[in-house]
Amino acid sequence: MTTATTTVPYRYDTSEAMFRRAAKVVPAGVYGHLGPSEGCFIPRSAYPLFSSRADGTRFWDLDGNEFIDYMCGYGPNVLGYNDPDVAAAAAAQAALEDVVSLPSTKLVELAELLVDTVASADWAFFAKNGSDTTTLAVMTARAATGRRRIVFIEGYYHGAHPWTQKLDYPGVLDQDVAGNIEAPWNDVEAMRRIFEAHRGEIAALIAQPYMHGNFRDNELPAPGYWAAIRALCDEHGVVLICDDVRAGWRLDLAGSDHHYGFQADLICFCKAIGNGYNISALCGRDSLRESVANITYTGSYWMSAVPMAASIATIGKLAAIDAPTRFRELGTRLTEGLVDVASSNGFTLVASGEPALFYLRIADDDSLDLHQRWIAECVRRGAYFSSHHNHFINAALTEADIARTLDIADEAFRVVRATAVAA
Amino acid sequence: MTTATTTVPYRYDTSEAMFRRAAKVVPAGVYGHLGPSEGCFIPRSAYPLFSSRADGTRFWDLDGNEFIDYMCGYGPNVLGYNDPDVAAAAAAQAALEDVVSLPSTKLVELAELLVDTVASADWAFFAKNGSDTTTLAVMTARAATGRRRIVFIEGYYHGAHPWTQKLDYPGVLDQDVAGNIEAPWNDVEAMRRIFEAHRGEIAALIAQPYMHGNFRDNELPAPGYWAAIRALCDEHGVVLICDDVRAGWRLDLAGSDHHYGFQADLICFCKAIGNGYNISALCGRDSLRESVANITYTGSYWMSAVPMAASIATIGKLAAIDAPTRFRELGTRLTEGLVDVASSNGFTLVASGEPALFYLRIADDDSLDLHQRWIAECVRRGAYFSSHHNHFINAALTEADIARTLDIADEAFRVVRATAVAA
Repeated sequence: MTTATTTVPYRYDTSEAMFRRAAKVVPAGVYGHLGPSEGCFIPRSAYPLFSSRADGTRFWDLDGNEFIDYMCGYGPNVLGYNDPDVAAAAAAQAALEDVVSLPSTKLVELAELLVDTVASADWAFFAKNGSDTTTLAVMTARAATGRRRIVFIEGYYHGAHPWTQKLDYPGVLDQDVAGNIEAPWNDVEAMRRIFEAHRGEIAALIAQPYMHGNFRDNELPAPGYWAAIRALCDEHGVVLICDDVRAGWRLDLAGSDHHYGFQADLICFCKAIGNGYNISALCGRDSLRESVANITYTGSYWMSAVPMAASIATIGKLAAIDAPTRFRELGTRLTEGLVDVASSNGFTLVASGEPALFYLRIADDDSLDLHQRWIAECVRRGAYFSSHHNHFINAALTEADIARTLDIADEAFRVVRATAVAA
Repeated sequence: MTTATTTVPYRYDTSEAMFRRAAKVVPAGVYGHLGPSEGCFIPRSAYPLFSSRADGTRFWDLDGNEFIDYMCGYGPNVLGYNDPDVAAAAAAQAALEDVVSLPSTKLVELAELLVDTVASADWAFFAKNGSDTTTLAVMTARAATGRRRIVFIEGYYHGAHPWTQKLDYPGVLDQDVAGNIEAPWNDVEAMRRIFEAHRGEIAALIAQPYMHGNFRDNELPAPGYWAAIRALCDEHGVVLICDDVRAGWRLDLAGSDHHYGFQADLICFCKAIGNGYNISALCGRDSLRESVANITYTGSYWMSAVPMAASIATIGKLAAIDAPTRFRELGTRLTEGLVDVASSNGFTLVASGEPALFYLRIADDDSLDLHQRWIAECVRRGAYFSSHHNHFINAALTEADIARTLDIADEAFRVVRATAVAA
């Protein structure tokens, strides 16, 4: 038995042909988090591979298929693709200058805006990648404390530099990760034991503001967790680094540490900072200003003025529309709707993490097969979800988009149920 | 006695006021290679601090002072600031999409263009910083060889990541630089001894195509040097990495390794690749394609389509105007003129390195004081030179600009001579 479907699943013939071209000149065809072997962990046959155009909350692939995009470029799309206000600010700056032999005053304006906006920012330092900021944070902590060890939370991701990879990853040496310590999430006593066992050795604790790792239900901080961790860091002289690259500004424009009621010593921003324009930022407290200023750390495009102008426009608009509240409302409505649609089809869907960055998992599916098949059916009908990565809400998402997404999810559940029954 | 001057030296009051604002919210006021403590090693009182507008070969500072810019943003300005063809390509792409959840086809087009253009490129991988590419090159070499040591040339600079810094730099650990080996430039026998002493331990030799370090006359490769080094690398199974971040495409669009008659295994590009649009690239040979594809390495904006479109336009235009030949001619005319002007004022000016990236030093000036004073007088009259860093030629530079620069240099020499006589 098969269930009637109202949508013909997408085909990707043009994208597949382009991927064959890519495979000749690009390692792995498409590398990194946008490659088909990683990309949102979407089953390969449902993966659209290349985008040709994006606008608002949507992109269109090479075959003309339209997607409501819940990955948002893995975060950078925070106001909507091609936001006209951000684009206008960028174009105005581009007409003046971008990368020159001196910085533009956008450097100062953006730093002032961050200091005014972000609770734990007494200063701001700009770069290009999230990794640039996490590496600078760790170097600053080591310089300030004269210690070497870094504590991570189990399941961490802080970018792609060797010090934050794992020993069994290609190209990583034991010396790159020597001294790294992993602590379980939401466990104050475990952290206390680690700090005591390595008293005087720990330069920094680097952590995301909540556990939004892949392949696991995302977990918010337990009540009192961050206050206790902050106190432990103070007691042991450990620099507390908030890696807000992924969650930054989707929860709170003052920083996700502020959202959870604590104050980091250093906070890393990237994805949401410029609505896709290429910029990242490390902010921090006065106590570390001298240390960061002494690090030898620079890059060819770090003073690029156009992304700074875009970032100023992005922050202004996010504040004007109270974007974090909107993200929470839209994310809540969507995830509640998805859970209901699942239930009406006989499935239990678990939505975890913050609604603005919701994570999805079908319960009672240890092989992950059911979940991946459902994701594939959603994607092939135009709802661009991830199998095992958190999602992102952007401000261009509408109630109509959510309604359409729930229709697609419903149809996808029906297809999966029919296949399961048939099997 | 003072010599009459035809130009009133610039004042920087507005820039200085802005720098006082910057100092409150930005570490060191302005950090990195554009900061006043590093910036071209220009004496602080002559340093203009902030740019407000750039066009062609010029920028204007906050006080409205105009500069003929021989630093070119430290390299990215290769066709001229705001080149209209590159800007048009970027704007056209921006109207479609930039950072999306999937790559655009610009990824494939640019990779194909690099494979067609760069002699040692069988594939291309794109990122944001020069450091992103040198780090990926070293990780790839370690993964491919199963070895750990890296050989550097004395006086090297390969970006800002810890593995390529020095042990006494703040935030750098002994484990970051463990196993690094330094070899003298242009010394085949020394390299042979190092390779033999560390047989089976060396993953890679990373080197710039010629010695264009700071605070020293730049040195071209001796005849036969690169052929001998290439043979040594082959004999010992060492990956040869050409760091072409600084010189890339100013000497030869096929790569600076091609310019000097050898073939690197991996070649790093950044500055000139997109005329200032934020992109870098690692290219390499088929033998390392599998290794690089297996490295865990990605960044939020690495698939950004606008810089890729800008890079395609940049390469096309550089090829159409045979830019490397033009850079050589303009650089030769300028440096020969500067040497003549120095001589007519009783000074010996030494111009070294490739004319497209000329390095300047006043001879018989061990304290560097005379040179720095001359540079200061040039800068304060509108010729933006560096004291102890190589310079860059861009394609928008004209004969009239060179004539004006020589007038400024002459006047600056007269002022320095007058001060020297008075002192």
